Amino acid sequence: MPLYLIGLGLTPDSISLKAINIIKNCSKVFLDAYTSILVSYEEMTKLMTEVLNRNDLIQADRTLVERDAGQILNPAKDSDVAFLVVGDALCATTHSDLYLRAVQEGIQVKVLHNASIINAVAGTGLEIYKFGRTISVPFFEEKWKPVSFITKTIENFQMGMHSLLLMDIKTKELDWKLYMRGIERYQNPRYMSCAVCCQQFVDVLNTDNDADLSVETKQDFEEIRIHAAKAGFSVDSKCVACMRVGTDDQKFIYCSIGEMAKLTEHMGAPLHSLVVLGNIVSDMEQEMLNLWKL
Amino acid sequence: MPLYLIGLGLTPDSISLKAINIIKNCSKVFLDAYTSILVSYEEMTKLMTEVLNRNDLIQADRTLVERDAGQILNPAKDSDVAFLVVGDALCATTHSDLYLRAVQEGIQVKVLHNASIINAVAGTGLEIYKFGRTISVPFFEEKWKPVSFITKTIENFQMGMHSLLLMDIKTKELDWKLYMRGIERYQNPRYMSCAVCCQQFVDVLNTDNDADLSVETKQDFEEIRIHAAKAGFSVDSKCVACMRVGTDDQKFIYCSIGEMAKLTEHMGAPLHSLVVLGNIVSDMEQEMLNLWKL
Repeated sequence: MPLYLIGLGLTPDSISLKAINIIKNCSKVFLDAYTSILVSYEEMTKLMTEVLNRNDLIQADRTLVERDAGQILNPAKDSDVAFLVVGDALCATTHSDLYLRAVQEGIQVKVLHNASIINAVAGTGLEIYKFGRTISVPFFEEKWKPVSFITKTIENFQMGMHSLLLMDIKTKELDWKLYMRGIERYQNPRYMSCAVCCQQFVDVLNTDNDADLSVETKQDFEEIRIHAAKAGFSVDSKCVACMRVGTDDQKFIYCSIGEMAKLTEHMGAPLHSLVVLGNIVSDMEQEMLNLWKL
Repeated sequence: MPLYLIGLGLTPDSISLKAINIIKNCSKVFLDAYTSILVSYEEMTKLMTEVLNRNDLIQADRTLVERDAGQILNPAKDSDVAFLVVGDALCATTHSDLYLRAVQEGIQVKVLHNASIINAVAGTGLEIYKFGRTISVPFFEEKWKPVSFITKTIENFQMGMHSLLLMDIKTKELDWKLYMRGIERYQNPRYMSCAVCCQQFVDVLNTDNDADLSVETKQDFEEIRIHAAKAGFSVDSKCVACMRVGTDDQKFIYCSIGEMAKLTEHMGAPLHSLVVLGNIVSDMEQEMLNLWKL
């Protein structure tokens, strides 16, 4: 009576035959809400109704998974249960918590993998084996401009490795102005675009706006600039914007970081991911990249 | 009239609903033979017959893809054509050649991604974002013992990053003894096991067999030992053997490199991949790893 952790891939119909056959026999089917920006609850319910004639998909938000996991685990003690995750089953978040709790309670866990941005970025034509560590990019705030995403990008760059940068997503941010007045409401979700991400590179690597920075931030930025100069890395270094990867609306754009920062109009809807190229690009990679030139 | 490059995932039934619907309308369906160790021509033909009632799958060996691509591209000029690849569509080999030739001939190319070892290794419970570059490990031969796979592993290790090592596969090696007698026959395919891979680490890092080495090889090995000692890397460093990932017969084993080298009996059939841990492992990762202890 296993708990099946099932990766859906990057669109609703990327679900596998194997997953369909498993879900058929599951007493309960949960959709991980945390990762469901790409595949909505409505889309997945529609697919399950059409293909399996069942419309009992349960939305699992973070509270359910983290604090109330019994709702998922208890039925898995005497029946099959499916927990659907957009992308790969374990790539966005490992779900190790849920996995370990299941094992502790004697429940077998089976994992069905599927495409995620981690391998779908191969669609750019870049060699997947030449990617260094994956890097998360947080939104800069007025008083908080962490630069470690640039440090890590430069480290990869120097070793001839490409960097996959995952953009910040803010989905459940309290509206503080309303909160002060006693109203608890969330802001609209914010998804970082590749243009905004590249603008953050420009903000750090160029000196134009240094006058507005705090002493500490300026110091951080200056350290990065020394590191970048030594490595031969600059706003002229090349990158590929990857928009809505794996969907029919997928788009790649190849240009320099500085140019990308200005492309606010060309990118369209989320999700975006950015690849910053390493300092070694093969001829074949370059030919593929040329397909995505503006 | 696109050419569809379709990733099948790690088992025949990992094919997606989307892929099934596309193949339905394709005039020709090719299976990339190069990567078809995991999903055989027979299995895929069986699945296509059962699900789509068609048994016209065409095996595409390397000669067809590289020298005779017109057989794939010409029909794609006025009908849909599918080219199936085990794993992700572009991860094992980018198929950039085929992609670029199609584009040059005015054929649209669409890619369907799926699971590959690159993301399925997340099944170990290790954070996918903490993996450094992916590393290929060649079989040692009597007079050719390249050590760059160890150099790269140590580089990742030092930066706190895990290494995914892909094992050598020799499928089309001429039997030279027969060849000398005028008979052209291939040897049985050889797949490197994690035990053999770890034994190669041991051969390089330990001094036991140095007497048998050429001067040049000994020099290479000694350089690696200095590098390893500085980095705190040794045969006691930990790794995870990943056998038949993504299949029902999947197995993980967690122990030291030295211990793994001795586990020749426990690993079973190919394909194997090895993860060598970085020098930073989180508590949650460690809890997951403990599940795979011998």
